[in-house]
Amino acid sequence: MPLRSSRTSLHQIGEFGLIRSLRRHFGRTGPSVLRGIGDDAAVIRPPANRLLLLSTDLLAEGIHFDLATATFEDIGYKAAAANLSDIAAMGGVPQHLLVAVAIPASCGSSEIKRLYRGLMRACRLYGVELVGGDTSASRLGLFIGVTVTGFAKPGQLLTRDGAHTGDLLYVTGTLGDSLAGLNILRTRVRAKGVAGDGQHKRYLRYLIERHLRPTPRLEEGQLLATHHLATAAIDLSDGLSGDLAHVCEESGVGAEIEIGALPLSPACRSYAAAHRLDPVHLALTGGEDYELLFTVSPGNRAKLDQLTQRARCRFSCIGTIRPKGFGLRVKHRNGSSRRLTIASYQHFRSQRVTPREAEWSR
Amino acid sequence: MPLRSSRTSLHQIGEFGLIRSLRRHFGRTGPSVLRGIGDDAAVIRPPANRLLLLSTDLLAEGIHFDLATATFEDIGYKAAAANLSDIAAMGGVPQHLLVAVAIPASCGSSEIKRLYRGLMRACRLYGVELVGGDTSASRLGLFIGVTVTGFAKPGQLLTRDGAHTGDLLYVTGTLGDSLAGLNILRTRVRAKGVAGDGQHKRYLRYLIERHLRPTPRLEEGQLLATHHLATAAIDLSDGLSGDLAHVCEESGVGAEIEIGALPLSPACRSYAAAHRLDPVHLALTGGEDYELLFTVSPGNRAKLDQLTQRARCRFSCIGTIRPKGFGLRVKHRNGSSRRLTIASYQHFRSQRVTPREAEWSR
Repeated sequence: MPLRSSRTSLHQIGEFGLIRSLRRHFGRTGPSVLRGIGDDAAVIRPPANRLLLLSTDLLAEGIHFDLATATFEDIGYKAAAANLSDIAAMGGVPQHLLVAVAIPASCGSSEIKRLYRGLMRACRLYGVELVGGDTSASRLGLFIGVTVTGFAKPGQLLTRDGAHTGDLLYVTGTLGDSLAGLNILRTRVRAKGVAGDGQHKRYLRYLIERHLRPTPRLEEGQLLATHHLATAAIDLSDGLSGDLAHVCEESGVGAEIEIGALPLSPACRSYAAAHRLDPVHLALTGGEDYELLFTVSPGNRAKLDQLTQRARCRFSCIGTIRPKGFGLRVKHRNGSSRRLTIASYQHFRSQRVTPREAEWSR
Repeated sequence: MPLRSSRTSLHQIGEFGLIRSLRRHFGRTGPSVLRGIGDDAAVIRPPANRLLLLSTDLLAEGIHFDLATATFEDIGYKAAAANLSDIAAMGGVPQHLLVAVAIPASCGSSEIKRLYRGLMRACRLYGVELVGGDTSASRLGLFIGVTVTGFAKPGQLLTRDGAHTGDLLYVTGTLGDSLAGLNILRTRVRAKGVAGDGQHKRYLRYLIERHLRPTPRLEEGQLLATHHLATAAIDLSDGLSGDLAHVCEESGVGAEIEIGALPLSPACRSYAAAHRLDPVHLALTGGEDYELLFTVSPGNRAKLDQLTQRARCRFSCIGTIRPKGFGLRVKHRNGSSRRLTIASYQHFRSQRVTPREAEWSR
């Protein structure tokens, strides 16, 4: 990418200089984008007969990201990917991204360009166009506002409120990897500097990658939506226990998770074993996996199994939807059942950087 | 509005409690909003045969607003109004708003509800629905991300790049009021505490209101777009000199402003006289007036004059578009002409709270 990597300060090039530069590098118009960066608003020709999906996130330094554990490119990539994950959870196709950045004096233009480079890398991977944004100074740290549009066919939406008693509970991918990756970054056990065999290093790199470069499950969400397979869905940003609670609250149901069925990566198991942690705890409490949690009517199980092969990601059945009075419970391998305490990360209760905190009470 | 004004802290009610409360008070769905607050994304049924307009702003504490000179309700109102002004500048009809807030520990739930009350007041006034958002903690001050959608008929868009040599340059309303209002707030000459006659107080209140509660010129923008009257348009957020420079850069033209034609309110003139300021300086350099600056082909002047009576706001012809080589100049009442130095507020150059800084060189 032909970005100058000079150490030009933003004071030298100014806000308009930055916007001009971003526009030159990233602002292209296409058949659906009549105006991108550079006017008062982006102008989009929406596809006919589609519903418009809109989601916005505001990422705060010291809360959602930490300049000590992530590069500017990582931060940009993850800001886009996390926002795209919301469109995945609705079964939609993401199309446009708007990015507003409040930039502290400590950031130079090369840092901000790296941030945009990360954003654009995620956008290109998922066919999303950067159509607008806003840049301003910040006296108080780096803040990034991301807004994404998506489109979905009417009648092919995934929402949080359709789960019924008896539905099967599924997740995509594996759980707990992101929290393990964050722990590794925090303890500065960087993959490149780690002693041990090749397999160990590969595991560490995998977990760090899962934390810094999450995969929005767009293909999986669209598959579920197109084939009317999911009665409810949500993406796992707060952690399994917290996000399951959202689905249950919206749908007016309870749920039971089978501990033995939680999908864990070999890397996560290995990390947990090495640090004497329970990998199930990581899976239940770790936020930012950005996998999809969804519910399926039992009659659709066979159809889902058939389609699974088309998806690049695995689907795991991890439990069952129960009546509301049942509450949220976990079933152990020995058949005993305990209440799942929901204490997933809540920003106002714990002013900390992630991990999302959830207790898994025995 | 039935909001509890208790001093409940956000730590007590938590993020999800806040979202539930906001949803109860503000989250309504209508024929065009299939899903509002409470799912992974808002779901909108876009009007048929319309272009979608999208604009986003990120407002930073200490840069875009100051808790010493504005209430939370003021901040919310202005955040919405400033974003709606971008849709006005495109000639569109605003429809939906998404608001993401990063909230420092010092803010209680009643402050955040007042912020939303201000946002909603502006939304209701202009028929806009709050459809989603995001709330999180902030370690570093209050930040507000606002995204607005609007719709416009194809072929009825106002853009920055269509001004031609010979076009007439217009603005809506009056200029410089917002900067005068900010100056008054800064020197803590609050209207309620001001000595002097009733007229003087009314002027101060008017100028403060113009700063804290700007009017997005939606009706005027739509009028210009529907009747194909403007060749280019922009809203005045950075100040007349800076925003004129944007239009000229995008259109590849120059411009000449007639000093004697700049529309000044009696309040602004009175304020300037009392403080030995040049009101023309306020008009050229003051940002955040949120008036529209637009260009009109000479052949459409009569049509514009006819339609002016339908608009509640006045249109003033303040100059002429010139060839690019002419640059940007101001013409004095005595006929002499000087270069207009563009130095309007650039966030990265001056890490200050507004006013936008522009030099009007003699």
